Amino acid sequence: MNLPLGYQYSAVYAGIRAAQKDDLALIVSGLPANAAGVFTQNRVQAAPVRLSRRNLKASKGLVGAVLINAGNANCATRTGDAVAAATTRAAAKALRLPAVQVLAASTGVIGVELDPNKITDALPGLIAGLNADRFEDAAHAILTTDLVPKIASGEVKLRRGTVRIAGMTKGSGMIQPLMATTLGFVVTDAQIPGPELRRMLKRGVERSYNRISVDGDTSTNDTLLLLANGASGARPDPQEMAKVEEAVAGVMESLAQAIARDGEGAKKLITIRIAGAPSDAAAARMARAIANSPLVKTAVAGSDPNWGRVLSAAGNSGVAFDPSKTDVHMQGVLVCRAGLAAPFSEAELKQKLDARDCEIRLTVRGKGKGSSRFWTCDLTEDYIRINGSYRT
Amino acid sequence: MNLPLGYQYSAVYAGIRAAQKDDLALIVSGLPANAAGVFTQNRVQAAPVRLSRRNLKASKGLVGAVLINAGNANCATRTGDAVAAATTRAAAKALRLPAVQVLAASTGVIGVELDPNKITDALPGLIAGLNADRFEDAAHAILTTDLVPKIASGEVKLRRGTVRIAGMTKGSGMIQPLMATTLGFVVTDAQIPGPELRRMLKRGVERSYNRISVDGDTSTNDTLLLLANGASGARPDPQEMAKVEEAVAGVMESLAQAIARDGEGAKKLITIRIAGAPSDAAAARMARAIANSPLVKTAVAGSDPNWGRVLSAAGNSGVAFDPSKTDVHMQGVLVCRAGLAAPFSEAELKQKLDARDCEIRLTVRGKGKGSSRFWTCDLTEDYIRINGSYRT
Repeated sequence: MNLPLGYQYSAVYAGIRAAQKDDLALIVSGLPANAAGVFTQNRVQAAPVRLSRRNLKASKGLVGAVLINAGNANCATRTGDAVAAATTRAAAKALRLPAVQVLAASTGVIGVELDPNKITDALPGLIAGLNADRFEDAAHAILTTDLVPKIASGEVKLRRGTVRIAGMTKGSGMIQPLMATTLGFVVTDAQIPGPELRRMLKRGVERSYNRISVDGDTSTNDTLLLLANGASGARPDPQEMAKVEEAVAGVMESLAQAIARDGEGAKKLITIRIAGAPSDAAAARMARAIANSPLVKTAVAGSDPNWGRVLSAAGNSGVAFDPSKTDVHMQGVLVCRAGLAAPFSEAELKQKLDARDCEIRLTVRGKGKGSSRFWTCDLTEDYIRINGSYRT
Repeated sequence: MNLPLGYQYSAVYAGIRAAQKDDLALIVSGLPANAAGVFTQNRVQAAPVRLSRRNLKASKGLVGAVLINAGNANCATRTGDAVAAATTRAAAKALRLPAVQVLAASTGVIGVELDPNKITDALPGLIAGLNADRFEDAAHAILTTDLVPKIASGEVKLRRGTVRIAGMTKGSGMIQPLMATTLGFVVTDAQIPGPELRRMLKRGVERSYNRISVDGDTSTNDTLLLLANGASGARPDPQEMAKVEEAVAGVMESLAQAIARDGEGAKKLITIRIAGAPSDAAAARMARAIANSPLVKTAVAGSDPNWGRVLSAAGNSGVAFDPSKTDVHMQGVLVCRAGLAAPFSEAELKQKLDARDCEIRLTVRGKGKGSSRFWTCDLTEDYIRINGSYRT
């Protein structure tokens, strides 16, 4: 992995979660980076979300470090705001950064007080461990019920040099990012002005994190940060900016897809493609309705080509479309033509649905030009097992 | 069960479903009854839904019989409309009723052609079996994945005599009725004019069927009919009408609650109560968001008092409320006060949550007067097992 220049990473076990796995991560940019962030739309917001919003504003979008912990969401706690402030201030002091240039992100259980001493005590070791090569260590430390770390990278050759992009993310349950995400950190060494960076993040989120769902629940801690420190020395010209944006969005798509694939209990990644909807937004609504249907997700888990559930779920999306002009493909096989059963070999399709990657395509034949791509996962008994006793 | 006068019921096995259990039911009113119906809001609507809407209009709300089959939804099929028309016409002929006075309802798999001969061949036996005592036989015949039949009844003493109400319903999965329901049939021998009956049904649905959810999926076949044949000879006066309406709504609440309790794979009925919301509609939205959260439902399955998930789900409802003024009770125990953890005995509450009836109460302390009651069920591994291979 060809990492962006000018960033260092570290991770330690601070004792926040019971399991002896790293639970505290730090991302530091040698030069303060231009930064953009999107956050959860949940009415209930965790303290680190409030702090990061505030600091981003106060620092005019300059970020020197991000302090991330897993094992505790620091949400709905008496001392939440004080803990987020004290720990980021301590990190800022040790790193010789203005306090407003340090952001925070947390993930884990809601409603349990987070002991700030665990973090401040771990800080010296965390900072001593900073290294440009420890990207993957940090990516491991931010995981909760995830089975695998989720990282992605990209590179764009510009006239004035090469810029690199790398991202890490976490998330497995409580996943339906809306205008925001789970935890995700994307860094690049390209020189990108703040306003451009914010637009880039917003558009990228729309086609990545805002197009996945594991269980339809939106968390209280969703945070996605995009940092650009310019350490490559290369500033994209206006034409090149589109290439960089495409590469950044590609990294975000890979990360989002990795979350859906690693959804709690999931065995399969489901890609949903909608075409012929009245608009792209309507197509996304239809895709989301299919992705959130437990009946569709359990059918895929059972390799059951139950297209009636797909049609019914789309019918519940609130989008006006004509079922009698609607086709459904599963794994490329036409299973429903013009709203009616199409002839297909059930046995063959069942076998195709045993694959780890499943695709559901719904096409409305008509004048509509709206399309959308959406990722989710199947719903298995393991989702229940994992979530029946998460806290205990 | 003191059944309403003037109705007869029958049920037979017509071979529509594989299992040798009655799958065809008939409800006949000796006098054509005033009738009101509400139907699914799904964009994809089954043929019997279209037929019943049309006939109700054409007959000016007069209904003589309702023909119901389980095992096949008669939805998204090439011959659906023709099958619904042919089978209800055959029933009308045999019963000497105008064709428009016979309604139809179907439930079962979507997208599989329904053989009308199975129904017409079974009609003579079905009609021969009509009897005022066979209410429960009919209630059994309409079930699909339900574990238990669902019936409820009521009685109101009026000045001019007693009127009786009885209802049957089915439903276990694909349950989130919206302005409509699963299949439900409520009959009364009160004399109630059509317009009054329609208002009564609409208001009753709002506090019963529209306040339950099993899995957040709305079916293509939802149908709830309310028939009033006047066979008691008693017509409620304006004051008494409110009592009759209350009794009708009570029957509908019992039926709706029975559906949530028998949700696919469910072990527990969850009652959600919201108070202090900006409006009743907002309270219902918050309740629905909690009821549809897989994380809340799996937590209850595991007897885990995870109130953070309750708060987070309410925060995703789109309703503006202040989490720091919000209390949560589970089984009457205060678990979250003013948005923060309240002290409670985890062991004791876990034991209380092992009960078959669980209650989650969310109260916003402030000026809001909106309240709502909502029923759902826990989410267990059996839901996955049932739905991973429903068709096959």
